[in-house]
Amino acid sequence: MYPETFEGFAVTDTSKWSTVSKIDFKPKPFEAYDVDIRILACGVCGSDVHTVKGGWSQPMLPVIPGHEIIGEVVKVGDKVSTVKVGDRVGVGAQIYSCLDCETCNEDHENYCRKRVSTYNSLYADGTVTYGGYSSHIRAHEYFVFPIPDGLKTEDAAPMLCAGITTYAPLVENGCGPGKKVGIIGIGGLGHFAIMFAKALGAEVYTFSRTSKKAEDAKKLGSDYYIATYEEKDWAEKYARKLDLIVSCGNSAQNFDLAGYLSCLKVHGKMISVGLPEEPFTVSAMPFMNGGVFFGSSHLGNRPQMLDMLKLAAEKKLAAWTELLPVSESGIKEALERCHAGDVRYRFVLTGYDKFKG
Amino acid sequence: MYPETFEGFAVTDTSKWSTVSKIDFKPKPFEAYDVDIRILACGVCGSDVHTVKGGWSQPMLPVIPGHEIIGEVVKVGDKVSTVKVGDRVGVGAQIYSCLDCETCNEDHENYCRKRVSTYNSLYADGTVTYGGYSSHIRAHEYFVFPIPDGLKTEDAAPMLCAGITTYAPLVENGCGPGKKVGIIGIGGLGHFAIMFAKALGAEVYTFSRTSKKAEDAKKLGSDYYIATYEEKDWAEKYARKLDLIVSCGNSAQNFDLAGYLSCLKVHGKMISVGLPEEPFTVSAMPFMNGGVFFGSSHLGNRPQMLDMLKLAAEKKLAAWTELLPVSESGIKEALERCHAGDVRYRFVLTGYDKFKG
Repeated sequence: MYPETFEGFAVTDTSKWSTVSKIDFKPKPFEAYDVDIRILACGVCGSDVHTVKGGWSQPMLPVIPGHEIIGEVVKVGDKVSTVKVGDRVGVGAQIYSCLDCETCNEDHENYCRKRVSTYNSLYADGTVTYGGYSSHIRAHEYFVFPIPDGLKTEDAAPMLCAGITTYAPLVENGCGPGKKVGIIGIGGLGHFAIMFAKALGAEVYTFSRTSKKAEDAKKLGSDYYIATYEEKDWAEKYARKLDLIVSCGNSAQNFDLAGYLSCLKVHGKMISVGLPEEPFTVSAMPFMNGGVFFGSSHLGNRPQMLDMLKLAAEKKLAAWTELLPVSESGIKEALERCHAGDVRYRFVLTGYDKFKG
Repeated sequence: MYPETFEGFAVTDTSKWSTVSKIDFKPKPFEAYDVDIRILACGVCGSDVHTVKGGWSQPMLPVIPGHEIIGEVVKVGDKVSTVKVGDRVGVGAQIYSCLDCETCNEDHENYCRKRVSTYNSLYADGTVTYGGYSSHIRAHEYFVFPIPDGLKTEDAAPMLCAGITTYAPLVENGCGPGKKVGIIGIGGLGHFAIMFAKALGAEVYTFSRTSKKAEDAKKLGSDYYIATYEEKDWAEKYARKLDLIVSCGNSAQNFDLAGYLSCLKVHGKMISVGLPEEPFTVSAMPFMNGGVFFGSSHLGNRPQMLDMLKLAAEKKLAAWTELLPVSESGIKEALERCHAGDVRYRFVLTGYDKFKG
């Protein structure tokens, strides 16, 4: 077993995407900047479901999902300077970038063209990456983040992907005092987007299809709540009101993209961090009307990750979680209920002490 | 006739969209900030064709197109201070905004929600607007632009729409020395986009389907030319190279939006000023890969229009034009050949002295 072999729960068939079985796997060779982490908890991300179902593309099987990882450092390479054995750390959805290209040098390592994802991805030497439904993970220290003492392990885990995915586009696009920020969809991503937008000082407008989550939105910090299926004239009512929209929706069907674009001020941006499996269909006209932009965003860079964790600790922000055991049945329930949207708002797998390692 | 009645060439049936006949029409009531202009020349814009064909939506018939207007001031209202009788002036595609809302106060009058287009549009009092295939036009002075002496009437006319449509997104999105700017499509819009991007100091990359227009692109100032149907690996070759793309294409069919997005640097913007009648279909994934944006843009504001005309005069920039008479046959040829893309690169109607007024 460890340190030669790690063990984890793998999906082996996309048609039985919620069924996992325990396998052993070899991590990448240990190098000077690497950190070995014994995992303590891992969030279950919508990406895990998209991946095991083959919704974005056929995964490399077996696949061990999980990229919202908190654990304890058990070994560090000779050149590691940012963490030490015993530290509590996090690993998110990215495990490697070249740290040497123009993109990395501009602190955009999360967009490096040589980036490697934490699971279902390949290192240059052909090693497959396996995620956090596992006993351990090995990562370059640049992608290992110290967790402030003020944050509980289970509360912090989902920040490593869902948190940073919403935090980065907010701070990069001017979210702050005096700004009006729209958040579309309240789920794993959206509940963080509301919390962070509010914590950053903006006035928060939350859009959801029905009024079912209105109370939750308020508790999370939303100032306004718009139930788009119930308030028929919402697009006109909020026309030109918002500086920025972060869309956390997971579906492009019955999605009124033109309506949302009309809510932006001139040259405003709508950033979709949800990644629907189906494409959007959109004409150029609604973009022209307000000179507005649509875009997306991929995770965040290291400074943003550290800033987010600091902000969360200071403002005592926590994911809204439901805990499940890291086991065949626990993972099955997590994947199936996550797919059904039946979670408020993030499953976190715990009970990692049952792994042999 | 003038000043009570103007005359112009109108399309009366979208199924006979290139057939015009002369009609008389009443302009809006003359007010204190209004300027009356005797028209000298008018460019034929792609919008004219979209409108008379009903491609974007059913027009108000009869419709008199034309919004690339140069003329001579023949009358000014009591409060007009920016032009005087005898001045040579231009009128573009916008004839009115409220000049009083948040959008107008931020110098975004080109996005005012009460804006009125130069033709096929309604003033608040119900007066229909008629464009520049006419003897005269009446406009609020804010939408009347003095033409510098250095610019010839026929060379300047197409700048009032095609010019400003490309100039504004370039200057608003950082086109300048040290920047790499992609221009897609060489036509009425694209030939200006190349000229202005170069004049503003950028390195210009022109994308066209075939190599047919390579020589023209070079003459217009393009540094690089990419024939996308001939150079199969263009998207990989130019990956992450461009700071900004202005797309002047008129069709969303067989348009490799994902490929172009991949040519942008991280957080780069692609702005489509062409307005295809059919929608784009796009998944969120190519946006996520580089954290990039897609948007559009509507004309430009008054300061940008004045800056553009000044730059054009200083750098001796001129539209590439083919002149046709403002007559039934001249307009028919212009609309039909514009629709077929058979013009390098802008028809300008002249011979306005044949109008009675």
